[in-house]
Amino acid sequence: MRYIDFDKTQAFTTLSALTREGVHFDYAAELTAERIRSAVAPMAGGLSYSFAAKPVTKNVLAALQALADEQELIAKYRALLDGDMMNTGERRKALHHLLRGQLGTDVIADGKNLGDFYKQELARFSRFADDVHAGAVTGSTGKRFTHAVQIGIGGSDLGPRALYLALEQWAAVEGSRKLTAKFISNVDPDDASAVLASTPLEETVFVLVSKSGTTQETLANELFVKEKLKAAGLDPSRHIVAVTSETSPLAHNPAYLDSFYIDDYIGGRYSSTSGVGGVILSLSFGAGVFKQILEGAHEADALALESDILKNASLLDALIGVWERNFLGFPYTAALPYSQALSRFPAHLQQLDMESNGKRVNRNGQPVGYATGPVVFGEPGTNGQHSFYQLLHQGTDIVPLQFIGFVESQRGDDVTVDGSSSQTKLKANLAAQITAFAKGKTDADPNKEFTGKRPSSLIFGKRLTPHALGALLAHFENKVMFQGFVWNINSFDQEGVQLGKALTKKVLAGGSGDAALEAYSRLLDI
Amino acid sequence: MRYIDFDKTQAFTTLSALTREGVHFDYAAELTAERIRSAVAPMAGGLSYSFAAKPVTKNVLAALQALADEQELIAKYRALLDGDMMNTGERRKALHHLLRGQLGTDVIADGKNLGDFYKQELARFSRFADDVHAGAVTGSTGKRFTHAVQIGIGGSDLGPRALYLALEQWAAVEGSRKLTAKFISNVDPDDASAVLASTPLEETVFVLVSKSGTTQETLANELFVKEKLKAAGLDPSRHIVAVTSETSPLAHNPAYLDSFYIDDYIGGRYSSTSGVGGVILSLSFGAGVFKQILEGAHEADALALESDILKNASLLDALIGVWERNFLGFPYTAALPYSQALSRFPAHLQQLDMESNGKRVNRNGQPVGYATGPVVFGEPGTNGQHSFYQLLHQGTDIVPLQFIGFVESQRGDDVTVDGSSSQTKLKANLAAQITAFAKGKTDADPNKEFTGKRPSSLIFGKRLTPHALGALLAHFENKVMFQGFVWNINSFDQEGVQLGKALTKKVLAGGSGDAALEAYSRLLDI
Repeated sequence: MRYIDFDKTQAFTTLSALTREGVHFDYAAELTAERIRSAVAPMAGGLSYSFAAKPVTKNVLAALQALADEQELIAKYRALLDGDMMNTGERRKALHHLLRGQLGTDVIADGKNLGDFYKQELARFSRFADDVHAGAVTGSTGKRFTHAVQIGIGGSDLGPRALYLALEQWAAVEGSRKLTAKFISNVDPDDASAVLASTPLEETVFVLVSKSGTTQETLANELFVKEKLKAAGLDPSRHIVAVTSETSPLAHNPAYLDSFYIDDYIGGRYSSTSGVGGVILSLSFGAGVFKQILEGAHEADALALESDILKNASLLDALIGVWERNFLGFPYTAALPYSQALSRFPAHLQQLDMESNGKRVNRNGQPVGYATGPVVFGEPGTNGQHSFYQLLHQGTDIVPLQFIGFVESQRGDDVTVDGSSSQTKLKANLAAQITAFAKGKTDADPNKEFTGKRPSSLIFGKRLTPHALGALLAHFENKVMFQGFVWNINSFDQEGVQLGKALTKKVLAGGSGDAALEAYSRLLDI
Repeated sequence: MRYIDFDKTQAFTTLSALTREGVHFDYAAELTAERIRSAVAPMAGGLSYSFAAKPVTKNVLAALQALADEQELIAKYRALLDGDMMNTGERRKALHHLLRGQLGTDVIADGKNLGDFYKQELARFSRFADDVHAGAVTGSTGKRFTHAVQIGIGGSDLGPRALYLALEQWAAVEGSRKLTAKFISNVDPDDASAVLASTPLEETVFVLVSKSGTTQETLANELFVKEKLKAAGLDPSRHIVAVTSETSPLAHNPAYLDSFYIDDYIGGRYSSTSGVGGVILSLSFGAGVFKQILEGAHEADALALESDILKNASLLDALIGVWERNFLGFPYTAALPYSQALSRFPAHLQQLDMESNGKRVNRNGQPVGYATGPVVFGEPGTNGQHSFYQLLHQGTDIVPLQFIGFVESQRGDDVTVDGSSSQTKLKANLAAQITAFAKGKTDADPNKEFTGKRPSSLIFGKRLTPHALGALLAHFENKVMFQGFVWNINSFDQEGVQLGKALTKKVLAGGSGDAALEAYSRLLDI
């Protein structure tokens, strides 16, 4: 396999020559009913990916297919599935797909079959959740657990939290609400203090998540929790389980009720489908619900092996993103779910995308000569319509948009006002926004004019279920992976977090030796 | 007064000529202890604005001062305070400053003194909150109110919600927690349904907020609430107060327990210091706490009259933002509060900034030839450090950063791990990040290299109190206003929301006559 920089490919030259086709794409003429009907790629979990309102002509699509072929994107994905070393910086495999099922060869490392290891841990924490639900495992006073609190930050917080919120209401109406989950992440003491003050400690199981077992914020918050438990007369070792790697100080530690393991091949932002997300989600909704998430994700992973870009939504989404980033010059993407349940899904996507592809060197450590990952931000619709959409419609720059919507609500509880239900209004707004962004509107008053030409895609499905959610999660993971392959960067490391950590240690050690660091420390009265 | 486009000013030419001073600003050499000590502008509420790590030389600062003078930014602010027509598109005044106190002449309109009108409404809803707290006003069964639920969207949601979350923990430890607040905003029926299912309706007062009284989402959610109240055997007219304009269908309506009024001169995103934020905050924390927010905001408004940019933090912040946007070419800004209490403050700033200045035409409706408002996004630190900071440190593009931090936590509840409290760790991380972003680090391994040169500012203070929060809120309002003056745009309208509204109505009316709109409606099974 050949790993070359994007701007050294033939496809880069071809796409450069096509830039005008994108810039001058005539949305008003092109966005026909036929295009909207047919420009849809299938996704897993009953979802579909509509790209009708993206500035891609037949020529552009052909060039993107040629790019996928030339950069051997599917072959690289297969290599990753087989356990080849993708995480070049630190020479690590990236095996999150294997958490959901096996699509490649057996992956043997550290003397074991890792697929078997992941299955075994899944079985272990599924059983633990079952035991908690059955009352076979209780807190130190014998009371049943009614609450679960995750202690973790970054990938140990954003993904699990987004997935919990995505299913909380679904579970309520489907009879799958088991425990109520909360989350402690920030080292700001107000975070842990506030959560603990409003949680019934006697009935709470804490899920302490740190792969390395050395995360500063998480260890500080662990002590916070332990002190409150002790002050309440409870035994912390009966109220905390750990999710960590087997080599971490948290592993095999009698200080915890139980421990569940991941390994170095599961990156934080890709760990929602491991015990990092699995323990809290299984406790909250039952192990069966978590397995439905895994099934949806596995289906999406299998579909991502398809080499025809029109049949592979995550690949197509990735390539259109590259087209917009590198040739049309848009430095951001807005993620806009028309679903209150996905209120924190954009925050997860923000980490997933920006931490994976916010890189300026290629796999070999040489600076690249083109833009890589964009800034990702977003809020749910229709809320955002009454907020930042003004700039999206009439600002001086163009922001590509990624919409998500569902035919049905989760709770099925609705009202009819002026002849339509709220769910219908929600969907009508979504259809209207896509059309408005693409086609715009002329007006004699330029302040009321909409220039349109704002590209968007739409992921849509019947209802946000665990199965659909798993597919949605994996879609974006695979999209980001394919973009990393195109850009020839390592999407699975995060060296950019190290300098801040090192300087923080210096400050806390009392003498940093850096005049700026010391002067800022004085401003903050450290 | 002269309203001219930014690129027609002498200052624009001067700043253009200085671009290289910004691009080549030598952070490593310039970021001395002396600069960090002295590059601080005073703010209201005991806050300070540090701009040491911004790429501004003495020459640049002088040119920015000249820009402020040439574009008559203070005179334009004074005119706005005096009630001159700033909202040119719809010919409306912008009077949110007058909610906090009077800094200009009396503003007479619609046959009344508007300062008096705002004071009278403040007094009315303060008394209402007092009555609720005293048990003199109760729900229809005579039970005391323990919960308040805001029904509103956009400016009727984001600002009030951000302020509520900002003070919830402060109030808990200061003995100022009166009612627990919740918020319903989205037209997605799952939003209202979930909030109502988890709220004790008998003890809940709803605050229905819509200036026009015609907001689609808010009216749908009002009916949602009324139906649930009736189903619970409660009388809606005893559980709902309205905040609206006197000309709206909600005004003087016996369907509500009481009504409080704003007028057309208070824009949604500027309405947190009116009854839009005031009713829910007074109910939650007491009228006295809300008045402290107003005092902090009024102090900030007074300080913003200072013509020396080094003594006027909101003006300086605005001008540095213009420098970064128009000359250094950065199309985004990240808002990064190191305070869990400010978890939703970035979402409010996102609306405030992007809805105000996301404009492509000037005050006279002519397209401008320069970039206006940037994309604004953000999450609290340290959480963001474990997420999107990778791109901020090592991405291919530069994102200017706006940090916020406090010396003390709100709750004062803390633990010591490895010799430092969590609050100290929080601050050490903040100092470390600013330094790391500015100065970077060389490394033999390019993947571990940080190029630095990432500009940031820091707003800091002792503790996030209501007074400080008011000052912080007004700082950003005034910053955005000054930028609008520089760009010669109208920061107080939002025509960009209209097209989506119109197309939504067409869809809901059943026949849109637009093939694209109908095709998307079919995808979503409308």
